Amino acid sequence: TPGRVILVGGGPGDPELLTLKGFQALATADVVVVDRLAPLAVLDGLREGVEVVDVSKIPRGRFTPQEEINAVLVDRARRGLTVVRLKGGDSFVFGRGMEEVLACAEAGVATEVVPGVTSAIAAPELAGIPVTHRGLSQGFTVISGHAAPGDPRSTVDWDALARGGTTLVVLMGVETLPAIAGALVAAGRDADTPLACVMDGGLPTQAVLSGTLGAVAKDGPPDGLRPPAVTVIGPVARFAAG
Amino acid sequence: TPGRVILVGGGPGDPELLTLKGFQALATADVVVVDRLAPLAVLDGLREGVEVVDVSKIPRGRFTPQEEINAVLVDRARRGLTVVRLKGGDSFVFGRGMEEVLACAEAGVATEVVPGVTSAIAAPELAGIPVTHRGLSQGFTVISGHAAPGDPRSTVDWDALARGGTTLVVLMGVETLPAIAGALVAAGRDADTPLACVMDGGLPTQAVLSGTLGAVAKDGPPDGLRPPAVTVIGPVARFAAG
Repeated sequence: TPGRVILVGGGPGDPELLTLKGFQALATADVVVVDRLAPLAVLDGLREGVEVVDVSKIPRGRFTPQEEINAVLVDRARRGLTVVRLKGGDSFVFGRGMEEVLACAEAGVATEVVPGVTSAIAAPELAGIPVTHRGLSQGFTVISGHAAPGDPRSTVDWDALARGGTTLVVLMGVETLPAIAGALVAAGRDADTPLACVMDGGLPTQAVLSGTLGAVAKDGPPDGLRPPAVTVIGPVARFAAG
Repeated sequence: TPGRVILVGGGPGDPELLTLKGFQALATADVVVVDRLAPLAVLDGLREGVEVVDVSKIPRGRFTPQEEINAVLVDRARRGLTVVRLKGGDSFVFGRGMEEVLACAEAGVATEVVPGVTSAIAAPELAGIPVTHRGLSQGFTVISGHAAPGDPRSTVDWDALARGGTTLVVLMGVETLPAIAGALVAAGRDADTPLACVMDGGLPTQAVLSGTLGAVAKDGPPDGLRPPAVTVIGPVARFAAG
């Protein structure tokens, strides 16, 4: 039988926030390909003999190019194996999942995608913050902070986002947070706008740091902020617990 | 022992896209409070004797005010029961979950929230569309279409959203879609921008209708569009399958 690749969104970190379909995919896996943000605790439940490939992409550390990950997926599937690609959150939210789907398609390898609980919504939620709330927020914008405002790689218009009226949720934005806050205030967003950074959402180590847009723009990120963190900007951030 | 309320995000409809934690909550429930968009198939697995309260809020049909739902949750919890409030998608994405949390808090009833797979991301994903994709989209905006552009209840700036550079995902926007498309084109968004509407994402009845922003603005929604549907607007919509 031909091999295949199942992309599974692993959720925000708590293994119990994996879907039933995700667990079922893991139960059929011959190979599991994981990285740093995947809920690694679920690997304890794997059958004996399952190969686990760790392709961690640690910022500024060990680096596995996406092409190498694609090659591992295609190679194992071509050997007739069932490959589960387990990621943190959802594969299609800054997970480069579509790149893997396209690489497999190009190599003639069948893929299936199992959606996951995204940290963009769940990390705030587990800290008491709803990304939408009647009367406060009719929508939310999830943005990668890896390219700061002004960075030539940035494809978003921070000026427009500042005025959109949605809750802003920033992922991968610990280092760029002061620049982002500065751009939003410069674009007219109220300096008193509440902001909350959720670290390790849903894990025993969960911590929340609160502040305002103006303070972060002026004085830098809240003390103790470290990645991975999800930052919520907007009136709903006032609901932050702890 | 005191009762409590667990808000469980049920995912986009396929019962297998419920989390393990969601299933565990249902296994402890004395009462399950559901509405129309919850994955009702999971109710088949409930213990004997569990009370199921259906608080369906069908648009323009039978209507249960939010206050009545809050009252059911508080009443059952005060009788010492474990109440699971099961919703479609995630409770904090247009699910009015925070209103229920606040009502319980006011009544002295303890709550817990279990995040779910949101249809805003999963419905596109199951139709082959990634809400983010390297080089195409550095972020996405999820918006409720219940208040059309120009509606005094609308709290978002469609003009700014048109220029933000994020993928737009519209929920509850079947009726307002032509007005939304018109506003985006009027604000300068390219009339050729691809658009895809995903109906019944992840269910056997899943269907995808594709078009462009300009065509929907001019000629109305794609033929056959009916709620509930998730509409994706942006270059990633080109990946739509089927």
